[in-house]
Amino acid sequence: MREYMLLLSRKRTILLEKGKIHVTSVGRVDLRNAEYGDVMEIGGEEYVLVKPTLADMMKKLKRGAQIVMPKDAAQIAATTGLERGWKCLDAGSGSGFLAIFLGSMVGKRGSVYTYERREDFYRIAKKNIEKCGLEGVVKIKNEDVKNFRERNLDLITFDMKDSHKLVGRARKRLKAGGWLVIYSPHIEAQIRAREEMEKEEMFIHSTIENIQRRWKSRYGYTHPEPSGILHTGFLTFARKVL
Amino acid sequence: MREYMLLLSRKRTILLEKGKIHVTSVGRVDLRNAEYGDVMEIGGEEYVLVKPTLADMMKKLKRGAQIVMPKDAAQIAATTGLERGWKCLDAGSGSGFLAIFLGSMVGKRGSVYTYERREDFYRIAKKNIEKCGLEGVVKIKNEDVKNFRERNLDLITFDMKDSHKLVGRARKRLKAGGWLVIYSPHIEAQIRAREEMEKEEMFIHSTIENIQRRWKSRYGYTHPEPSGILHTGFLTFARKVL
Amino acid sequence: MREYMLLLSRKRTILLEKGKIHVTSVGRVDLRNAEYGDVMEIGGEEYVLVKPTLADMMKKLKRGAQIVMPKDAAQIAATTGLERGWKCLDAGSGSGFLAIFLGSMVGKRGSVYTYERREDFYRIAKKNIEKCGLEGVVKIKNEDVKNFRERNLDLITFDMKDSHKLVGRARKRLKAGGWLVIYSPHIEAQIRAREEMEKEEMFIHSTIENIQRRWKSRYGYTHPEPSGILHTGFLTFARKVL
Amino acid sequence: MREYMLLLSRKRTILLEKGKIHVTSVGRVDLRNAEYGDVMEIGGEEYVLVKPTLADMMKKLKRGAQIVMPKDAAQIAATTGLERGWKCLDAGSGSGFLAIFLGSMVGKRGSVYTYERREDFYRIAKKNIEKCGLEGVVKIKNEDVKNFRERNLDLITFDMKDSHKLVGRARKRLKAGGWLVIYSPHIEAQIRAREEMEKEEMFIHSTIENIQRRWKSRYGYTHPEPSGILHTGFLTFARKVL
Repeated sequence: MREYMLLLSRKRTILLEKGKIHVTSVGRVDLRNAEYGDVMEIGGEEYVLVKPTLADMMKKLKRGAQIVMPKDAAQIAATTGLERGWKCLDAGSGSGFLAIFLGSMVGKRGSVYTYERREDFYRIAKKNIEKCGLEGVVKIKNEDVKNFRERNLDLITFDMKDSHKLVGRARKRLKAGGWLVIYSPHIEAQIRAREEMEKEEMFIHSTIENIQRRWKSRYGYTHPEPSGILHTGFLTFARKVL
Repeated sequence: MREYMLLLSRKRTILLEKGKIHVTSVGRVDLRNAEYGDVMEIGGEEYVLVKPTLADMMKKLKRGAQIVMPKDAAQIAATTGLERGWKCLDAGSGSGFLAIFLGSMVGKRGSVYTYERREDFYRIAKKNIEKCGLEGVVKIKNEDVKNFRERNLDLITFDMKDSHKLVGRARKRLKAGGWLVIYSPHIEAQIRAREEMEKEEMFIHSTIENIQRRWKSRYGYTHPEPSGILHTGFLTFARKVL
Repeated sequence: MREYMLLLSRKRTILLEKGKIHVTSVGRVDLRNAEYGDVMEIGGEEYVLVKPTLADMMKKLKRGAQIVMPKDAAQIAATTGLERGWKCLDAGSGSGFLAIFLGSMVGKRGSVYTYERREDFYRIAKKNIEKCGLEGVVKIKNEDVKNFRERNLDLITFDMKDSHKLVGRARKRLKAGGWLVIYSPHIEAQIRAREEMEKEEMFIHSTIENIQRRWKSRYGYTHPEPSGILHTGFLTFARKVL
Repeated sequence: MREYMLLLSRKRTILLEKGKIHVTSVGRVDLRNAEYGDVMEIGGEEYVLVKPTLADMMKKLKRGAQIVMPKDAAQIAATTGLERGWKCLDAGSGSGFLAIFLGSMVGKRGSVYTYERREDFYRIAKKNIEKCGLEGVVKIKNEDVKNFRERNLDLITFDMKDSHKLVGRARKRLKAGGWLVIYSPHIEAQIRAREEMEKEEMFIHSTIENIQRRWKSRYGYTHPEPSGILHTGFLTFARKVL
């Protein structure tokens, strides 16, 4: 497994592979003998070399499909109470971001099964999982999820078309108390998902959207960023009863 | 340590201590011989008994002070890339919610030191930490945080008045690359915190607020909840460079 | 027509009928010889007597049904370019707030026809229109709007169930370039309305929602109000082509 | 004064000067003998010719400075109860949008005095006012507003740096009950403005921000626009008492 270093200055972060020489936009960086904690001067600026967190890694992953943003992934963790050791299923993988996030949370005692039908996305997601060192936790399959066989699951997340068609199957394969989370940018998908959850006699917890604003603040001029992301997706949360 | 069971029906969740008889609003519940997975009929409704997640537990904790909401706690985890094994400091504890959340994320290999000056809040927080079984991870002190001595920290969270006065001390006691997060409902506190972070030559990552809306959906009438929480707090994130 | 006075102090506004004696929560107020511009001391506080604006009047009107809030009424005016002299139709009246707002904008050279099927709402709306002195501009009918006969309209606003069923009729009775605005709290109503507008080959301008936050600011603690109104309604705007 | 026509099809609006030949992106348009209500085929699409509303005109005005958006202008009208015949002062003009909006609302019996110090903005604003045919209502001056002499005003709007320095002067020159509205993108300007309004013993009505989201809806995929404007400005409203 390749290892990475994060170069952090007051103004910038740069993620680079350990043990190599790199040519970057701010200058040449020799990491052949670099250790975490070292300080380097590059382009007149001081950088400290630190171990990247998962969030650092994810910012640099390749994106093939629309990704689930950290704020939405975090909401899934906070609402369900996602814990070490959970067994999860995630479909479709897209670029693998949600599966990677879940994998980092459930750890080695847990597991995340993720399905991606499209081969191009599958390849990107697989590489991203490996880059984060999570291939022991996150198992990716280049298959349609509709016949998934995993059972006794703690959490199922669907981020794909026609999720509602799999609500019945999902309920059967969850543990009692287990969570089904439907993510989608479209409100109709949420409405249909809730209808199916009702039919399946699940406990419907909530439908949530989070609107995030970043604020700028310089020299007495503090304000939310004038433009940016206004909407990512809606999340519907339900739990298996019987 | 007391153990809890979550009773889950299609419409309701009830958190009760294991091994006891309870009188609830829906009827008498005898959990003396109850096991996870059992199904019980109470007040004409079927309940399944499941192991509560941390999120289930937290909904039932006692609140003495304004709490950091799950959406904001989750944002802290998502932005910083909070990992197993991290060493964290949190002040002030309030009712202990953020410390408990952090504790559940860093696990037994990690640690969370939390400070609460007010004795009444300290007592509530201490009980809440114990109720969640996290007393081995989360160490609470009934002291003013201003002289804290922990060092080599991965993450510091401040949710208290005059946080900006401790930015300098916080920087010194973080690891290189470590995170300082200032939470507060007031924008002035964010502005002052950023100014101090600038002075301390930290990497200022962002100031964020999340506006959460819950949606209702019944029989073709889908809409955001007409009223509810419009604002909790702002979060400013910075990282120690040198 | 009864005339009103607004009593305005640093802390409070009170709306009272001119020429009478009133007993209020802050004390007895004698307006028998009061003129606009007079200053009165009531309960130890100074009040100036001013002519109420429409916004002052509307805050004191009786509410029988959910009202269209000023921010949404203003959005209708801003998007359509509502002008003096326009001929408008509004259904259902509810408490008459939107009709009153439109009436104040189109003035004496314009007209607003408003329909309310429910007699209790009709009565409240009628009184409110009169209280605002707009009975010469706003004509209210205690009828179902579905057979409305007004034509050559500049603007039609629907705030009622099943608005989409009247989109075809509305198009026929608008001027070329005239506006149809569908207001509703529910997203399904907006989706259905847009589908009908498409079928009717109208120009679909937009679907909009406005989230309003009020900020509090006292002694260095500035923040959005923690709780309040998160959602009122969606607005879909379309224009008649042919 | 030049007159304009709005060409409206199912998909598009085009604003052109009446009585001329135009070359547009969809084809050549001959408006020499065109009348309102005419239907024209251009580029295979049918257009109807209608009289533009102020909102139509404003979308095509030249922008030199950041403009006050319709949603914010409309909020000013809705909160203050802006009426025909009001006497208003607006500074700085910027591109003249707010002054034009106010001018259209107060009409010929009212007046709007607007100040713009920068000559380049002044010229743009002046042309915009003329294009909208409001030069009889909106008087623009290429001067610093700080010595303005208008008095007995119903409404003053400030959209400029250091507005708070003029709060005292504004209060003196308003009618009793008259409104002062401070618009700015920055929260500090709002805080300072409120402090001055307190000192001047005005009635502080509110500080408001409106977050607008546009929704897209096509074939069962309905969702807020993923990205766009997250923030325009804050508005603080106060009223003169004495």
